[in-house]
Amino acid sequence: MPAQYTYQGVVSYFGGDFSGWQRQKNSDQTVQRYLEDALAQITGIKTIVIAAGRTDAGVHARRQIISFKLKDQITAGKLIMAINGNIPKGIAVTEIKKMPDDFNALAAATRKWYRYRILNRRARCPLRYGFVYFVPYALNLQQMRVGATTLIGTHDFTSFCASRSQASTKVRTLEELAITAAGDELHLDFKAPGFLYKMVRNITGTLVEVGRGQLKGIDVAKILNEKKRSQAGPTAPAYGLTLMDVEYE
Amino acid sequence: MPAQYTYQGVVSYFGGDFSGWQRQKNSDQTVQRYLEDALAQITGIKTIVIAAGRTDAGVHARRQIISFKLKDQITAGKLIMAINGNIPKGIAVTEIKKMPDDFNALAAATRKWYRYRILNRRARCPLRYGFVYFVPYALNLQQMRVGATTLIGTHDFTSFCASRSQASTKVRTLEELAITAAGDELHLDFKAPGFLYKMVRNITGTLVEVGRGQLKGIDVAKILNEKKRSQAGPTAPAYGLTLMDVEYE
Repeated sequence: MPAQYTYQGVVSYFGGDFSGWQRQKNSDQTVQRYLEDALAQITGIKTIVIAAGRTDAGVHARRQIISFKLKDQITAGKLIMAINGNIPKGIAVTEIKKMPDDFNALAAATRKWYRYRILNRRARCPLRYGFVYFVPYALNLQQMRVGATTLIGTHDFTSFCASRSQASTKVRTLEELAITAAGDELHLDFKAPGFLYKMVRNITGTLVEVGRGQLKGIDVAKILNEKKRSQAGPTAPAYGLTLMDVEYE
Repeated sequence: MPAQYTYQGVVSYFGGDFSGWQRQKNSDQTVQRYLEDALAQITGIKTIVIAAGRTDAGVHARRQIISFKLKDQITAGKLIMAINGNIPKGIAVTEIKKMPDDFNALAAATRKWYRYRILNRRARCPLRYGFVYFVPYALNLQQMRVGATTLIGTHDFTSFCASRSQASTKVRTLEELAITAAGDELHLDFKAPGFLYKMVRNITGTLVEVGRGQLKGIDVAKILNEKKRSQAGPTAPAYGLTLMDVEYE
């Protein structure tokens, strides 16, 4: 077996430019495809790039963590320059380091942090366009927090999982769901070892209904218990969501 | 003379979408044109909109201040909704209030604050693309501050004024030029009653040359004294610049 060197990288991307992280048949515009093609270009060898979070189309990443293996050792500085020179400007590799051979960015991740940003004021903001979900209605923060609290912990999240998900179990552990007012924005910070397909955006869409008074905070517990996607609120738009960071042991 | 009502408005825009503030023959994509057309649409009467800062193509505005006169009184909330419904998403009116009849957003402005954002790190940032000028070289902040300090005060700024400017005098009073490190960004904050054409971007381009060591801080005083545009550094790109706010007595 040839010698191999394992690398970890930190990647940012503007979700609006891409059809999500994962390679797919219907689109060349995936972040994985661009990174894999850049590494193939640089090394001459087909390379697989693994990510901690398989973000959906439109979702941004601040610190997505990736891993890949190369046959030859390349210094981090050169590798960053070479990759960034071969990918669109909507993606950037900001850090790279060598790792033990068994490191896998997906398998080793212990916790992911997603932030959903809501702009809650009367007028839209052109300087944050494409990064925040604009909600011009008054939102009842206290009721939203009542709803959020009932979701924290280990539950069957079927009601908040997109129906086309192929996950074998819909049980996940939501370790944190904090709602913070930050100037004219609300930030919903989700932390968990893993999420279901569109889970963060489905919870957000439901909590916005709670904030607007179309549901009560305590209704969220009922929706969770129903274990039916049709019970919950709509899916909040992708562009409000950012994968903020990934934790490892 | 028919009764008239004078309004002040606060406007944000994403500069990348427009050919600057001012109406022009070569382009329909000006912020002034969109706002004037929206008011004509709403009131049925041709309306002139005046701005405090005539931002160039590509320059953003956080709190541009405008004024205009209407024949009929309209409540602020309705006017904001109606204007925002008739302009592109790259512009938003966020506040409107009635003012005394003699208010003019340009004539009454006492001070404008522009911020130039430089991203100073090894890799570009897709999440700030279009808002920061990416400079991957190490910048000597201390030397940049030496250069900046020599520009504060009342001077003939010919060396930092675009040659096609039609200003009758090139004397301006730069009241503040602060350079602040903010994480991986440098912020250059300029405050003055008025600026020459491209003055902020020409000063920034020159200070970046100082930061990179191609000029020394004390050279900036010599460049100022030469009173020739050709002596100074290049014009920094428009997308790094934002009109932050305007002050009135």
